[in-house]
Amino acid sequence: MSKSIFYHAGCPVCISAEHDIVNLIGSENVEIVHIGEDRNRIAEAEAAGVTSVPALVTPNGNTLHINFGASMADVKG
Amino acid sequence: MSKSIFYHAGCPVCISAEHDIVNLIGSENVEIVHIGEDRNRIAEAEAAGVTSVPALVTPNGNTLHINFGASMADVKG
Repeated sequence: MSKSIFYHAGCPVCISAEHDIVNLIGSENVEIVHIGEDRNRIAEAEAAGVTSVPALVTPNGNTLHINFGASMADVKG
Repeated sequence: MSKSIFYHAGCPVCISAEHDIVNLIGSENVEIVHIGEDRNRIAEAEAAGVTSVPALVTPNGNTLHINFGASMADVKG
């Protein structure tokens, strides 16, 4: 993959971090995935190593967890 | 300021995140500060809201804490 993927769950911490990431790396370089709404991508996020949101999975597959918003357990409910 | 500032303390988590951030936003857009070595910048980092490293302070002053490596208390020793 050539884009980063930013996973979030709509929380205020997530939205703030989303704006920062888009400003930093450009909206054309990052796919935004709201896994609270797009729940069929939760498994994909977990497979990428996402344990909390917001998180950014880089093009080389590293996962950066940013300012803790919610655990994946919370997102899955 | 127009550059982001990436504060770290040399830990493996920090170095890994540094590489990811530099790849994502470009080395010309981020100043790397090793506050374990450059200890006179610890106060500046704390004033910017850095509570753990690695952390990225964006040009608009937001602080993104990335994959927890060490608390500021640990850095100060």
